[in-house]
Amino acid sequence: MDLTRAAAVAADATDPLAGFRARFTGTDDDGPDRQLYLDGNSLGRLPVDTPAAVARVVEQEWGRGLVGSWAGWVEQSRRIGDVLAAGVLGARPGEVLVGDTTSVDLYKLLVAAVDARPGRDVLVCCADDFPTDRYIVAGVAEQRGMTVRSVEAHIDEGLDLGVLAQALDERVAVLVLSQVAYRSGALVDMAAVTRLAREHGALVVWDLSHGAGAVPAELTAVGADLAVGCTYKHLNGGPGAPAFLYVRQELQDSLRQPIWGWFGQRDQFAMGAAYDPAEGVDRFAVGTPPVLAMAAVEVGARLTAEAGIEAIADKARALTDLVVALADGWLAGHGVAVASPRDAARRGAHVSLAHPAAWQLTQALIDRGVVPDFRTPDRLRLGPAPLYTRFVDVWDAMDRLRTVLTDRSYEAYPVERSRVT
Amino acid sequence: MDLTRAAAVAADATDPLAGFRARFTGTDDDGPDRQLYLDGNSLGRLPVDTPAAVARVVEQEWGRGLVGSWAGWVEQSRRIGDVLAAGVLGARPGEVLVGDTTSVDLYKLLVAAVDARPGRDVLVCCADDFPTDRYIVAGVAEQRGMTVRSVEAHIDEGLDLGVLAQALDERVAVLVLSQVAYRSGALVDMAAVTRLAREHGALVVWDLSHGAGAVPAELTAVGADLAVGCTYKHLNGGPGAPAFLYVRQELQDSLRQPIWGWFGQRDQFAMGAAYDPAEGVDRFAVGTPPVLAMAAVEVGARLTAEAGIEAIADKARALTDLVVALADGWLAGHGVAVASPRDAARRGAHVSLAHPAAWQLTQALIDRGVVPDFRTPDRLRLGPAPLYTRFVDVWDAMDRLRTVLTDRSYEAYPVERSRVT
Repeated sequence: MDLTRAAAVAADATDPLAGFRARFTGTDDDGPDRQLYLDGNSLGRLPVDTPAAVARVVEQEWGRGLVGSWAGWVEQSRRIGDVLAAGVLGARPGEVLVGDTTSVDLYKLLVAAVDARPGRDVLVCCADDFPTDRYIVAGVAEQRGMTVRSVEAHIDEGLDLGVLAQALDERVAVLVLSQVAYRSGALVDMAAVTRLAREHGALVVWDLSHGAGAVPAELTAVGADLAVGCTYKHLNGGPGAPAFLYVRQELQDSLRQPIWGWFGQRDQFAMGAAYDPAEGVDRFAVGTPPVLAMAAVEVGARLTAEAGIEAIADKARALTDLVVALADGWLAGHGVAVASPRDAARRGAHVSLAHPAAWQLTQALIDRGVVPDFRTPDRLRLGPAPLYTRFVDVWDAMDRLRTVLTDRSYEAYPVERSRVT
Repeated sequence: MDLTRAAAVAADATDPLAGFRARFTGTDDDGPDRQLYLDGNSLGRLPVDTPAAVARVVEQEWGRGLVGSWAGWVEQSRRIGDVLAAGVLGARPGEVLVGDTTSVDLYKLLVAAVDARPGRDVLVCCADDFPTDRYIVAGVAEQRGMTVRSVEAHIDEGLDLGVLAQALDERVAVLVLSQVAYRSGALVDMAAVTRLAREHGALVVWDLSHGAGAVPAELTAVGADLAVGCTYKHLNGGPGAPAFLYVRQELQDSLRQPIWGWFGQRDQFAMGAAYDPAEGVDRFAVGTPPVLAMAAVEVGARLTAEAGIEAIADKARALTDLVVALADGWLAGHGVAVASPRDAARRGAHVSLAHPAAWQLTQALIDRGVVPDFRTPDRLRLGPAPLYTRFVDVWDAMDRLRTVLTDRSYEAYPVERSRVT
């Protein structure tokens, strides 16, 4: 791989997604000291169209239309869900719903799945999965008197299916697993894991948070039953943007989620005496969704669908290949190790670099206009979001990291960590 | 009571809250055909300051500050909670948190309360309470193998404490009850109910949705343990605005809620192996709150606190007294009956009028620029939000209703209902 800046510039010149960069705010500064935002896998950039879309909902629909606007808002959860289903997740219409947080959605689907596997008393998760996944699993296990098997297999090179298989047997009700590992970026073979779980009669609840909008999920093709995911990373839905949930059509009417809110009720506004869950994916709704925040999710979802998830994933592989190549070529001698799969086909849209002083390096980079993020204890995580990150942005960011390592200026930063996101 | 329009105009002239009307959009039209919005108890109007506040969060904090803005956003749930605690709910700092939906919050606190009353197997609710309250109670009862006692006492004149008392005994774990009945507007004596429940060793989870921002809750003074409530009605937080939850300080560290999301974790960003709930009210948080929607809640909460909940409640009593007086004076002969408490001290900020053709009357009023709402099967509900509704607005709305009844034009509307909010 050619590690020159000219090669990065050339790659940008033939990038089929190049035009999408201008659809995001903060991408107009092209100077040598510009900010290089490589934390799009934590909070995606603001689409140019979002402020007006949010303002329209606030000023026109709420301000002028008032309560009458509910005729449109009531369709919002399903409408955005269908955009995600068709354009991002590889699911069918009526299988995806947007509204609650990822954590609440995960709880709902996990409890529904446990109830669908009576007599089984084990939940499986991965020891290195995102905290909320592990905690939600632990909470449901405690409530239900179940045991958690925490698989020590979500390592930097990806999930070892052999190790996972050892944790599965006829006692396992549900497996909760992230498609893309939040630290390493390792991509799980969803079809293989789904088959493996089925062989043991277990259901899988997928957390797509760290890959949704960056890599395809192909939920129908891989035979996925249940999934959740956030929209504030690669889907550019805004801070704390409402999450989505997916339930395979054939399962919907046999599952019941535990939080019986009125938005999950059949003929909701009849306000009937008994809870009678709606048909289809609507039964997985609970309360009134945050309409203003949803308006931003819709813009991000449509933008991602417009670009095409396969084109985005192609560019994600190329961008992260460049990170890996530059890390190997420039930084290995400074003690930096690639802590992500080297095979791009096994990777989401971010790369983790391991270094004992990762926290200090993070601070030094931030002071030099690069926004990475830090993951405990020793990871510098770089997420070059394909829709608005250029190859030359990756090159320049890695060059600044090389400088910080070469001149050892990172050593001037305090070692202790403060609260980070 | 003087039922002339001149008397209404005179009441407006001495209204201490008159200045707040201009703080809301859509209040500048003063013509005879203006819209009369009496559905503020379903969706409150848009405060003038909200569009800029939301735009600042979208364009500056998200668009420019990007992930670095989390340093401020992470305080948002508690900060808005403290505004509500001090200015609206009569609670102490650190007792109120904003973030999830009312339904999710109710589920969390109800399960936490059930777990705090081991060995008890009955939940009590009211047969006429808001649907989501009844459904959430039914769902938790089913999950826990508990029995629901549904009290037939939440009638138009308010909750009969004698009837409620008959439902309470040593088997009752938790009572779920709305402070203000969503149909009749009847106000519950929270102190008396709390004492009654305590005598039987039961906890109460209050739903303040239909009164928050219109009548005081005085949570500390009445000895309330647990409460939830929405912010999109009288708190003017916007459609689907995130709800609040309240947990009395002394109870916080002994309760655990069931959805173990990472926002409830002590030292959240250390991403530790085991769930270890944060101290204080933070342990009742779950996932990432919808930051954009929260920005609108903050404006509404501060505006309400600025006006003062006692002044708002005073005006609510006067406005609803006028509705009752005009209904008695003008409409009784047309078959309209007041289906709300006649004693203003026992009423929230809305009045229900019963009429067999309530659905047709609702449609006829909407066509004549009055926005009431309909509650099944025969109620026309009028919610004159005190912060922006004038006495003359109530007078004119009731006058239009009188006209529709007198000329029988409502009879031209179809009887069947469509979906309404």
